[in-house]
Amino acid sequence: MDRRSFLRKGALGGAAAAAGSALAAPAIAQESPQVTWRLTSSFPKSLDTIYGAAETMADFVKGATGGKFNIQVFAAGEIVPGLQALDAVSNGTVEACHTASYYYWGKDPTFAFATAVPFGLNARMQNAWFYYGGGNEMMNEFYAKYGVTVYPCGNTGAQMGGWFRKEINTVEDLKGIKMRIGGFGGKVMEKLGVVPQQIAGGDIYPSLEKGTIDATEWVGPYDDEKLGFYKVAPYYYYPGWWEGGAALQAMFNKKAFDGLPEAYQIALQAASQAANCDMLASYDQKNPTALKKLMAQGAQLRPFSQEIMDACFKAAGEVYDEINATNPEFKKVYDSQFAFRNDAYGWWQLSEFNYDYFMMRQQAAGNLKM
Amino acid sequence: MDRRSFLRKGALGGAAAAAGSALAAPAIAQESPQVTWRLTSSFPKSLDTIYGAAETMADFVKGATGGKFNIQVFAAGEIVPGLQALDAVSNGTVEACHTASYYYWGKDPTFAFATAVPFGLNARMQNAWFYYGGGNEMMNEFYAKYGVTVYPCGNTGAQMGGWFRKEINTVEDLKGIKMRIGGFGGKVMEKLGVVPQQIAGGDIYPSLEKGTIDATEWVGPYDDEKLGFYKVAPYYYYPGWWEGGAALQAMFNKKAFDGLPEAYQIALQAASQAANCDMLASYDQKNPTALKKLMAQGAQLRPFSQEIMDACFKAAGEVYDEINATNPEFKKVYDSQFAFRNDAYGWWQLSEFNYDYFMMRQQAAGNLKM
Repeated sequence: MDRRSFLRKGALGGAAAAAGSALAAPAIAQESPQVTWRLTSSFPKSLDTIYGAAETMADFVKGATGGKFNIQVFAAGEIVPGLQALDAVSNGTVEACHTASYYYWGKDPTFAFATAVPFGLNARMQNAWFYYGGGNEMMNEFYAKYGVTVYPCGNTGAQMGGWFRKEINTVEDLKGIKMRIGGFGGKVMEKLGVVPQQIAGGDIYPSLEKGTIDATEWVGPYDDEKLGFYKVAPYYYYPGWWEGGAALQAMFNKKAFDGLPEAYQIALQAASQAANCDMLASYDQKNPTALKKLMAQGAQLRPFSQEIMDACFKAAGEVYDEINATNPEFKKVYDSQFAFRNDAYGWWQLSEFNYDYFMMRQQAAGNLKM
Repeated sequence: MDRRSFLRKGALGGAAAAAGSALAAPAIAQESPQVTWRLTSSFPKSLDTIYGAAETMADFVKGATGGKFNIQVFAAGEIVPGLQALDAVSNGTVEACHTASYYYWGKDPTFAFATAVPFGLNARMQNAWFYYGGGNEMMNEFYAKYGVTVYPCGNTGAQMGGWFRKEINTVEDLKGIKMRIGGFGGKVMEKLGVVPQQIAGGDIYPSLEKGTIDATEWVGPYDDEKLGFYKVAPYYYYPGWWEGGAALQAMFNKKAFDGLPEAYQIALQAASQAANCDMLASYDQKNPTALKKLMAQGAQLRPFSQEIMDACFKAAGEVYDEINATNPEFKKVYDSQFAFRNDAYGWWQLSEFNYDYFMMRQQAAGNLKM
């Protein structure tokens, strides 16, 4: 799987040829037309890091084309409701969206593999699978029936497990817990007696405060701190095993994308990959500071117990078995991504993990001043 | 520190303004001139993943500008020797290079912070520090006196500790070991009695075979496997604590860069960040497979003992103290990067680390099929 070969043989070859002919007979209108697109984000501006990835992408495209290709970014609800972003791109209401593929898991659970699935890939592995493990090609084969062309565009890193009003230590403690958690993670939790709840972002805090729900997952320290959950549900659990490295997507209406000059297509591809890198870097800079702030405010850090983690892993396996038995498209992507994961952790356990482990031991010993 | 604000207020604002005026009075030659640059890589084509990052960057720039901005990539030695890449860009022999900043540590150890320093940042932290922690601005202030403008452009991830002809278990075992290891890592090793050796890539294997040297570090499984070290020095140690996430750099002659249309500057910036993401993804896909191959061929995996790791950490601290005492520019970057590191590991120890840890426990238990 060689993305560069694709770039060279496909889009770029054509672009170079077009440029060549343009030099012989200048035709500025065809070569660099003024194009304005609308991009609807699935996210509000308050989730500034995720929302910002779409702006970063659009800025790079606009900048690299000298202002010729202008993508206007709209927050969720401004022109399209957040969870209808895919539909709006699919039916051509807008040319583009920035969204999380797993929001559409209700249409087909296969969508989830591009964002995150329980006990799936971490952020770096997700990129490796997308760009070099055949993941992006495979997902685009799947997306084709929705009329969209998709590139990875952002990652949160491993998310937290969320905020709980009371400590949970055993699988028994999970039974009857009303938790705001959606999609795949919610389906696994349900097997353990959790009652998943769908609640919009703005309603979570009052629901926790009143005790209408017992727990919620959100993102990580930076975004969580702003919503103040620590005040009403102080136990902050980790890891968020249903989102080991949640990836965002830039989705383009396929006809609109195919109709672009090849230079603009390549600008979209490069800008999406740059924004992908950029968003993760932004979270990796913001989360450490936010964590310190949360700790100072009284958040209580708690790891999920081994018993709970093992039970969740087993329950996830049951859910995978059920879907694999009935959905061949899901199984095809599952086989690819999980084989990739199993090899990837074989390598990760050496230098990558042990380097971090040693550094954290030194930190625990108070030696990280140097 | 907000890279996007810089992009919006700086380069992009100008580019958008230029495009606006161009629409009023088309001036194609000024707006999108045909530009050809030469980029010399510090790497041979045989290190295809690292070398390839420069090609990926150049492909994106060429593609996004419709072939107008063409960066020709040359391997080490084709037009400039590998380790003279910075000098060649600095004095304008070529407009650009792709290199590892730490190669120039002999000029000033401050160069090393942009690539990797002992017990420094892992790959994701390195990006977070560059893009959002003020790292790239700080390094460019330092680079200014060499007349170059620099962007991160690739990362290897945590490297391996290298190949040893015999097992080493204690600090005593390190004494007198002749190891091919350069730069900062070599200087730390020297404190523990290792005799660092500088040997070109092609000469390492025969030196190990003859016993002229006892050990060598190189990169990771994918690159190491090709050189066949496992046949003559089968003990493969980890982690490579001197390269927890080695970053590569795209360096541009500052005058040449400043003379580009702003659209081309932004294309370079976006393409460098895209290639940065891409190279790490490529290694993360290649290394797991190469590791399995190495194991099948008889490589013996060994973690550095806690005693050795602790001694190396202590020795590194001594080296930092020595340089900080005499080099204020070094100390300025050190203070920034190490404060960042200390906070970053405070967050990393929660979801990110525990997610991976749980997955590896499941792997060790034979459960990663699901």
